[in-house]
Amino acid sequence: MAELPSLEKLIEAFGCLPGVGKRSASRYAMHILSMPEDKARSLSNAILEARARVHFCQQCGNLTETDPCAVCADPRRETQTVCVVERPAGAMAIERGGAYHGLYHVLHGVINPLEGVGPEELGLDHFADTMVSRGIQEVIVATNATAEGEATALYIAAKLTPHGITVTRIAHGVPMGSGLEFTDGLTLDRALQGRTRV
Amino acid sequence: MAELPSLEKLIEAFGCLPGVGKRSASRYAMHILSMPEDKARSLSNAILEARARVHFCQQCGNLTETDPCAVCADPRRETQTVCVVERPAGAMAIERGGAYHGLYHVLHGVINPLEGVGPEELGLDHFADTMVSRGIQEVIVATNATAEGEATALYIAAKLTPHGITVTRIAHGVPMGSGLEFTDGLTLDRALQGRTRV
Repeated sequence: MAELPSLEKLIEAFGCLPGVGKRSASRYAMHILSMPEDKARSLSNAILEARARVHFCQQCGNLTETDPCAVCADPRRETQTVCVVERPAGAMAIERGGAYHGLYHVLHGVINPLEGVGPEELGLDHFADTMVSRGIQEVIVATNATAEGEATALYIAAKLTPHGITVTRIAHGVPMGSGLEFTDGLTLDRALQGRTRV
Repeated sequence: MAELPSLEKLIEAFGCLPGVGKRSASRYAMHILSMPEDKARSLSNAILEARARVHFCQQCGNLTETDPCAVCADPRRETQTVCVVERPAGAMAIERGGAYHGLYHVLHGVINPLEGVGPEELGLDHFADTMVSRGIQEVIVATNATAEGEATALYIAAKLTPHGITVTRIAHGVPMGSGLEFTDGLTLDRALQGRTRV
């Protein structure tokens, strides 16, 4: 298709999306050519609009179109509890659950020395000061159960516990509705370690 | 995420792509927010560019940025053979194969009475006249092996054969490199029917 440079460029651009290979990218591009003009235009516009409007909340670092974000601005939220997540998608997932009523703090990463990300890059020292000055009672660390996520949780605990702030970690275990036979060994280990009295 | 209307709109717009559900659409949208500004802008532009530049070749109906398309304009092509495909993607697939040196005709559909697509909607009568006046020797019908694709092939054969034009159908059978045990029954039936003498 050396004769269709603009189609090739579109395929290449779609290929930048996560999990989109050459095949899916071509399929999307062909669909763009056959879909109604206004639909194609609205996808193009939606990309620019989202980039222009969505930014990080100055208080919690979550995605927002307002400042502070809707969660930080909501007076019904428990302002003494903060849940730490790696990415905005994590906060969104917890919001979908609907059981959490505290605030968030989005790290936009985890401590990862191999990639040159230390506590300073994540602003963790500043975060600790802020938690203390805001009188936060509990910080729930919901980073992923990776080595980096655990290290970050430990760092946060080491920084905040001396100030009398309770630092907790979300439970890792067998997902609801799933059976033991579908659960990997590492998750089962954690489920056993994290057992609670009935 | 009622607080992020532009993100929601972007997720909705991605959801219009084929095979993209809510989950993938969210993933693409989140990636758009985190990717470099110029990459996001180039995807947005590529959509508009492709729509603006790519159109159908006036001669063969294939996608092109020039008129006539590169295949129709290529003097090395066999101008007495035309391969009929349902969609531009079909012609692209055959071009990738590299074994075909004739021209194309893209129908942009197949005869489908249930959806109100008859020979007139596909311009098949005009197509027959054109093939006769251009002195075409062979028309290879490469529509899909569906009831509609077969009906379309039969219609084309009925229209062209009286004019002395050879109408052929591409072979359907066991794919190269695949085994009998991975091939469905219908394909095996066709492979047996279409057997050739060694």
